Amino acid sequence: MHKHGGDIYRNQGVVDYSANINFRGMPESVRQAAKDAIDASVCYPDPQCEELKAAIAEKENVPAEWIFCGNGAADVIFSLVLALKPQKALLPIPSFYEYRQALESVGCQISEILLKEDEAFCLQKRFVNEIPMDTDMVCLCNPNNPTGQLIDREVLEQVADYCQKTDTCLLLDECFHDFLEEGSVHTLLPRVKENPKLFVLRAFTKMYGMAGLRLGYGICSDTELIRRMEQVTQPWNVSVPAQAAGIAAAREQEFVAVSRQMITEQKKLLLAGLEAAGAKVYGSAANYIFFRAAPGFDTRMYRAGFMVRNCGNYDGLTEGFYRIAVRGEADNRAFLQALQELEQREG
Amino acid sequence: MHKHGGDIYRNQGVVDYSANINFRGMPESVRQAAKDAIDASVCYPDPQCEELKAAIAEKENVPAEWIFCGNGAADVIFSLVLALKPQKALLPIPSFYEYRQALESVGCQISEILLKEDEAFCLQKRFVNEIPMDTDMVCLCNPNNPTGQLIDREVLEQVADYCQKTDTCLLLDECFHDFLEEGSVHTLLPRVKENPKLFVLRAFTKMYGMAGLRLGYGICSDTELIRRMEQVTQPWNVSVPAQAAGIAAAREQEFVAVSRQMITEQKKLLLAGLEAAGAKVYGSAANYIFFRAAPGFDTRMYRAGFMVRNCGNYDGLTEGFYRIAVRGEADNRAFLQALQELEQREG
Repeated sequence: MHKHGGDIYRNQGVVDYSANINFRGMPESVRQAAKDAIDASVCYPDPQCEELKAAIAEKENVPAEWIFCGNGAADVIFSLVLALKPQKALLPIPSFYEYRQALESVGCQISEILLKEDEAFCLQKRFVNEIPMDTDMVCLCNPNNPTGQLIDREVLEQVADYCQKTDTCLLLDECFHDFLEEGSVHTLLPRVKENPKLFVLRAFTKMYGMAGLRLGYGICSDTELIRRMEQVTQPWNVSVPAQAAGIAAAREQEFVAVSRQMITEQKKLLLAGLEAAGAKVYGSAANYIFFRAAPGFDTRMYRAGFMVRNCGNYDGLTEGFYRIAVRGEADNRAFLQALQELEQREG
Repeated sequence: MHKHGGDIYRNQGVVDYSANINFRGMPESVRQAAKDAIDASVCYPDPQCEELKAAIAEKENVPAEWIFCGNGAADVIFSLVLALKPQKALLPIPSFYEYRQALESVGCQISEILLKEDEAFCLQKRFVNEIPMDTDMVCLCNPNNPTGQLIDREVLEQVADYCQKTDTCLLLDECFHDFLEEGSVHTLLPRVKENPKLFVLRAFTKMYGMAGLRLGYGICSDTELIRRMEQVTQPWNVSVPAQAAGIAAAREQEFVAVSRQMITEQKKLLLAGLEAAGAKVYGSAANYIFFRAAPGFDTRMYRAGFMVRNCGNYDGLTEGFYRIAVRGEADNRAFLQALQELEQREG
């Protein structure tokens, strides 16, 4: 089984920097909505997610018919792949592991394009020319997980246009979009209307601190595809608490703005500290930072009480690459203090 | 989309007799565990469901390695089917719709065997001889949903033996097993050890009134199959509240015993009333009753404030078949009163 970040269940007594969740946790309205929803959880969830889809439709300014809701964004990926059953798919690596897992579940042949360290793990202009002719699906993550790198807008549009022309599904994972400072520059959501091959993936789990409740959604103007996804998915995939939490989260605006601002501030602190300690930072567009440090960095920090994501098990990466979440000030100061002490002891 | 019972979202102000949920709702310990778990839902759920599996293992007296946990029993069905990708499957009909939905999601060719009204919708001894040679999977539901009929123990064992001999997966859905008065007589769970082709499906959703939280599990001694199911399923399919609720539910014993007793009593009341009103009852082994009545029965009861499951959209059934859940005494008396008034008005 692929090892992920966030395994607090077998790692207690350490501060978790390994999962990319908003350090502020759930907004109070979301927490309350989820708690209240437990009493309503005696009944089956709404298979149509009617109220939730209406809330997302309003938030994203798209028709409700374009929305597919899932038990976390990962569930949406699996439903999309099961609906399409692509025979050949293309993945830049390193990236989120579940694209591969979902594609393999339907026996898809996967080609990979390596994002290179000497290109700062950025998707290059040449990518669009490297898509094999018979590709059925391309998976892009923007900003990318775990690298924290954004895809150049022009490159992104070229790929989307190419996919539309060649009848190739473009799964564009924007699960960390909410954390971007200039979000509108970096999303292709407004292009969904004109490009039915574009499938934009979003999540509530990260920004609204509800990873344990599970709620993600996809937006695509190909309503026939949305219908097929529903056909290959159980009717009750989104729980009652997740639907209630999502409805509340969709209405939160200040929480998002304040979170972004706090994360930006804290990120500066962590970036400076990591660089001072000799780490080479590659990307930090979202609420996490991707960097290279001396192998064993995670083990040393773990001993000091901090769980860091070792990215050595990502396809396309080796030992020595790490990812940390941006947490709150007190945690971050303690993290940097520990980092400094380690450096001094070893340096 | 297949229409299910329990659509309280588009049917408000009526008493829901259409969903097969324990009318007593959640045990207090489960409710409290789920509420408390909302605060812990900022983090990802345990992908290994370690504590939950340990609780189920103890409850069912099986090793934790034999257990697969899902986002409701339906999720388990989809993961099983995606792991096995059966080419040919056999379903007695009428039965739970999601076997077909899951099988179709992987392009499986489905054969059906009609459970006949003149045989009271009971699976017959001849069934084992009717399984085509090249069948990869057989789905049986015991007690069956929606018919409420049990499968004869001898027939069940014959089918299980046949499946073992012919390398055919037997999905035995025991989701309503908890409601049986003589549960130990009607389960093949003790046979799982000696028969790795037997996959027993169970659910928390029905007995513990947590349909909206989603939690089901499968038990199979073929640990390689369990591993493959995990490979084709997202790591975080069971939410934090569902895992917490399941751990609490697995420890409940009195709640189950009391529920069974109350349901047995109330069932008698409803059965007598339905028969007095001229309905032909076919099965009622669990917490629901399946019967034939004059077409339009559901519409008339709906007008009187009660939502009944019209079973006309099940494969193998036509208009005139209905299912009701057994609810609490006050509801049931009101239901029977309305039924009587309808009969008098029309009779």
